[in-house]
Amino acid sequence: MEPEYRLHYAPDNASLIIRLVLEELCRPYECVLVDRRAEAQNSAAYRALNPNGLIPVLETPDGPLFETAAILLWLSERHGAMAPQPGNADRAAFLKWLVFASNTLHADLRMLFYPEKYIGDAAADQAQLQKVLRQRLHLHLTHLDQAAAGRPSWLGAPQPSVLDYYLACQMRWMALYPAQADKSWFALSRYPSLQRLCAGLESRPAVTAAREAEGLGATPFTSPAYANPPEGSAT
Amino acid sequence: MEPEYRLHYAPDNASLIIRLVLEELCRPYECVLVDRRAEAQNSAAYRALNPNGLIPVLETPDGPLFETAAILLWLSERHGAMAPQPGNADRAAFLKWLVFASNTLHADLRMLFYPEKYIGDAAADQAQLQKVLRQRLHLHLTHLDQAAAGRPSWLGAPQPSVLDYYLACQMRWMALYPAQADKSWFALSRYPSLQRLCAGLESRPAVTAAREAEGLGATPFTSPAYANPPEGSAT
Repeated sequence: MEPEYRLHYAPDNASLIIRLVLEELCRPYECVLVDRRAEAQNSAAYRALNPNGLIPVLETPDGPLFETAAILLWLSERHGAMAPQPGNADRAAFLKWLVFASNTLHADLRMLFYPEKYIGDAAADQAQLQKVLRQRLHLHLTHLDQAAAGRPSWLGAPQPSVLDYYLACQMRWMALYPAQADKSWFALSRYPSLQRLCAGLESRPAVTAAREAEGLGATPFTSPAYANPPEGSAT
Repeated sequence: MEPEYRLHYAPDNASLIIRLVLEELCRPYECVLVDRRAEAQNSAAYRALNPNGLIPVLETPDGPLFETAAILLWLSERHGAMAPQPGNADRAAFLKWLVFASNTLHADLRMLFYPEKYIGDAAADQAQLQKVLRQRLHLHLTHLDQAAAGRPSWLGAPQPSVLDYYLACQMRWMALYPAQADKSWFALSRYPSLQRLCAGLESRPAVTAAREAEGLGATPFTSPAYANPPEGSAT
């Protein structure tokens, strides 16, 4: 099949969320590696696709799309799947937690992983920022776990939503990154409904395909290991 | 008219964006003041509407909705206005900048205004965080200004979009807050397309209505003054 989309990716980066959703939707796409070791995300060619220099970019018939949550929304609308559609009474609840996952959970996670982009290079400053962020993240996950406990159709249901994959990947990363930091603060078992969500996804063919493409190991969400990808690097 | 929505608001808070959009859409709504001086946003009753304790909440026929960007998206879909709708070729570009406005611009702004929620109470830590954030915000605004320069239908066009009001309010707040800090880093004139967007909105009847309801003064976006609201307080 002719590729419908082109995904600019790096292994185990936010592009993984988009890959999982494209696999789940069974859409034909091709991948272009963004070589993070060469800082290719800051090249003029990449900045022409995304001026913010962040991964992923999805090239679509409607132009280059960035921002993970925007890509997830757009794909779910275009293919009429993996989310309550406009007009559905569940749309409001789905949208509020999708935006929360993006502008609160993911925003805080980005700071935990790249504190130097927010506070500069002093180790003590970074440690202080990360300490508060870990407390915040636990609170965010507690709220998401409560939302998932009600078993809504768009969060942890048998048919996965774009939000499910978004959250499962973020929980994977909390267990793994920053690589050199103490991760004992994070235990998936503290969030039983989110743990169930993660376990449910691991048997999906979409996850098998992404595991192979990015070298993610057998249990990428419930008991993740560092990626061992066939090409490129996660950081 | 019977109110269609109930907006939980505090003057000059993010609820202002939702008020402006409800006015622009000509929908009947009632307002409930969240008394920030009494920390009403942390009350059990308010947390039942939004467990994150943030303003605004919009009560809708589909339940309480929070997260500014989620409310904006949902209102634009429900009323088929103020945004490219699903299926429109402009939807992708609109979504990516709406999400950027939420999870990057607004997320960074929240840290600039409430650094203690991220770095603790030490003044030097807060100052260091805010210094980097001001540099980041300038870069974000530069990218948004470039997006607006192409005069797309959903950013600075004669018929306002939900994103227009979202950005105009954020630029207002950058000029005003934190109240005790130096704001000389911010000058709307550095972003000519965003300045044009702000100026264009100020003649809208929706803005007149919001100015009166929240005491915003004559030029709330291009040359803002602190709110002098008939009830409640901004902080």
